[in-house]
Amino acid sequence: MNDLKNKSKTHDEEQAIFADRITDVPRSFIREILKVAISPEVISFAGGLPNRDLFPVEELKQSAISIFDKAGKEILQYSNTEGYMPLRELIAKQYLIKQGINVSPDNILITSGSQQGLDLLGKTMLNEGEEVIIEEPGYLGALQAFSLFRPKFCPVPLNNEGMNIGELSFLLKKSLAKLMYTVPEFQNPSGISYSEHTRKEIAALIEGRQLYIVEDNPYIELRFNNKRPASFYSLLPKQTILLGSFSKTIVPGFRMGWIVAPTHIMDKLIVAKQAADLHTNIFTQQLVYEYLTHFDNDAHIKHICDVYGRQRDAMVRAINDFFPKNVGFTIPEGGMFLWVTLPEGYSSMELFDLAIKRNVAFVPGNPFYTDGKPYYRTLRLNFSCSDEKTTYVGIERLAGAIKEIKI
Amino acid sequence: MNDLKNKSKTHDEEQAIFADRITDVPRSFIREILKVAISPEVISFAGGLPNRDLFPVEELKQSAISIFDKAGKEILQYSNTEGYMPLRELIAKQYLIKQGINVSPDNILITSGSQQGLDLLGKTMLNEGEEVIIEEPGYLGALQAFSLFRPKFCPVPLNNEGMNIGELSFLLKKSLAKLMYTVPEFQNPSGISYSEHTRKEIAALIEGRQLYIVEDNPYIELRFNNKRPASFYSLLPKQTILLGSFSKTIVPGFRMGWIVAPTHIMDKLIVAKQAADLHTNIFTQQLVYEYLTHFDNDAHIKHICDVYGRQRDAMVRAINDFFPKNVGFTIPEGGMFLWVTLPEGYSSMELFDLAIKRNVAFVPGNPFYTDGKPYYRTLRLNFSCSDEKTTYVGIERLAGAIKEIKI
Repeated sequence: MNDLKNKSKTHDEEQAIFADRITDVPRSFIREILKVAISPEVISFAGGLPNRDLFPVEELKQSAISIFDKAGKEILQYSNTEGYMPLRELIAKQYLIKQGINVSPDNILITSGSQQGLDLLGKTMLNEGEEVIIEEPGYLGALQAFSLFRPKFCPVPLNNEGMNIGELSFLLKKSLAKLMYTVPEFQNPSGISYSEHTRKEIAALIEGRQLYIVEDNPYIELRFNNKRPASFYSLLPKQTILLGSFSKTIVPGFRMGWIVAPTHIMDKLIVAKQAADLHTNIFTQQLVYEYLTHFDNDAHIKHICDVYGRQRDAMVRAINDFFPKNVGFTIPEGGMFLWVTLPEGYSSMELFDLAIKRNVAFVPGNPFYTDGKPYYRTLRLNFSCSDEKTTYVGIERLAGAIKEIKI
Repeated sequence: MNDLKNKSKTHDEEQAIFADRITDVPRSFIREILKVAISPEVISFAGGLPNRDLFPVEELKQSAISIFDKAGKEILQYSNTEGYMPLRELIAKQYLIKQGINVSPDNILITSGSQQGLDLLGKTMLNEGEEVIIEEPGYLGALQAFSLFRPKFCPVPLNNEGMNIGELSFLLKKSLAKLMYTVPEFQNPSGISYSEHTRKEIAALIEGRQLYIVEDNPYIELRFNNKRPASFYSLLPKQTILLGSFSKTIVPGFRMGWIVAPTHIMDKLIVAKQAADLHTNIFTQQLVYEYLTHFDNDAHIKHICDVYGRQRDAMVRAINDFFPKNVGFTIPEGGMFLWVTLPEGYSSMELFDLAIKRNVAFVPGNPFYTDGKPYYRTLRLNFSCSDEKTTYVGIERLAGAIKEIKI
């Protein structure tokens, strides 16, 4: 047998073993960027992480001890696919209290991060070549998850109030899309939030169509100021699929999120979830439930908002102080990201190289656009992980790099 | 808006929103069975669970406290897609010590249960209509996971030594299958293990083809006696993909497993894993590592084998004592299941109804076969969860039900 084992396969032979769908997934450009940004001298606005100094470590430790003592065996056995019922009931209750919307626990499926919700939705709803309406710029994780099911992406550009209504309306005249993916609060990467007016116009446009809005809201609780506008779910409950996450309000390492969907869709999502991983880690489901019922997580979230809000203020102040006046930027009302638009003729990729030489990093806008768009003068800045002083120094360095560009 | 909201959709309209793939997934018949078997009077051999009385609760609690104290923030942040490197190194080391095979940690991806390994393999390798060779009867979870990618299943019947070599050889004459799925040790549902002879014949048949054996071994450490035969990986390392799991040797609730694949396949699996859930729960990855490096899990596994081995003995003894002599059954050398074949003309579905009336449950063989097979006189008995006395009583009841069947 050994003589054959040592024959190396040609590239073509190796490609032939793969499914076509896997060749369509965009490479994570951000991963490569993060490798460059890892040096300790670099001030990095490139990441997309919550600030780990704010993790409720001691509270989670106490909760873990408590559930081991109370129910050691139950929390370690195989469990049901839908997820831990008391946790689903608590999520439903929080929707009612915090957003005034009615969601049944039976329509909530606990997922391994909200990323898995995207995978399950793609599996359940997307045939090859079918259209998905997306935001541009848009969340890369959603593009990756949906790509595997080979849809046709129909991007709609964002403005400061959400999707461009004129473009969406034009698209819908001929589109048979079944899914429309949105991050309506403090969008990743742009930091913008949909205005109440835009939400209502979008709801009116899609109402009664065979089209579901995916309302992905990982940052919704990280609002620094102003009132939260009505959710798509409150406007169109039967045509809205909600994605939620504990990654930004508790910790991301547990990979715990959820999806809310109408019953006929939920039935299929559960089949797909069972085939994907049987169920989400039941130990950390119960751990999160124990934590939420024994500690004041709302106070914890308020503390996160205070810190991130101050860091956003520091970033905005520094941009105003140092950036040339023809550089545009968003002022997010929450979340973790701010979006910068360089003047015509500038390239954020060129800026990236200059910035790294000055020990400051960010994510150029390119990966957030689908192919073929030449709109390459944007960049994403993260403000959750750098304190106010570091942010100020980093933005000053970045301003120096911008001024170095010759056009 | 409200008038439209209240219009109910027709069945056809509702079906139109789903992807074709989701309609192909077999419903979990076993789920329905387990609902019937849940009453406390019923002695159930229907489940597929490890015995929760053997979970190392206290050791896992101590390990959790220890990692919170040592590295509270790191274990809770987002992590890399591939998995926790020290854990992957430990898995590689165990392969060398326990199975004498060389696996690089770079070729190990930590998955959310080995079920996720099946999903990722399907995503990465199966185009619609492509062939997958499977065992018959076969593991339902694999059928479900692969079904979503709409392959053509090519079943090969099992005998007491593994796949029927004649049938496999005939199939391979015309097959272009890229994947062949096997559970070579204490197979679910049949309990049989592949003999060394069969393994070598299979390896010789597929060597040099564009075909990968999936060697799914969740039960490999649960061997009660005799020597472990050479793994497919040791015979054909470049054409074998290994699936492993902590569900049967530590606990299933953490949903933690792994997949080992050649580098060119691993690269694609990592892309698919990132799109599926970014990474597996890093907290429980580190918890399992802490447990494995601070407690004697080999002694723990030996204890599990002692208990399951005694329970298997009790089941075999009771079958010999009570079943009619024309009922066939396997005597597994490990694992959790034993397979019964009723005489010609008997129906295990009919037996199920009679058995439930006598307060004993099992899983009829039907769901373990792909469609169209009339081979409906088999059943699966689980021996991991019932102590020796209960097993003896349950088998006596089942024997009574068998004798009641009129043919």
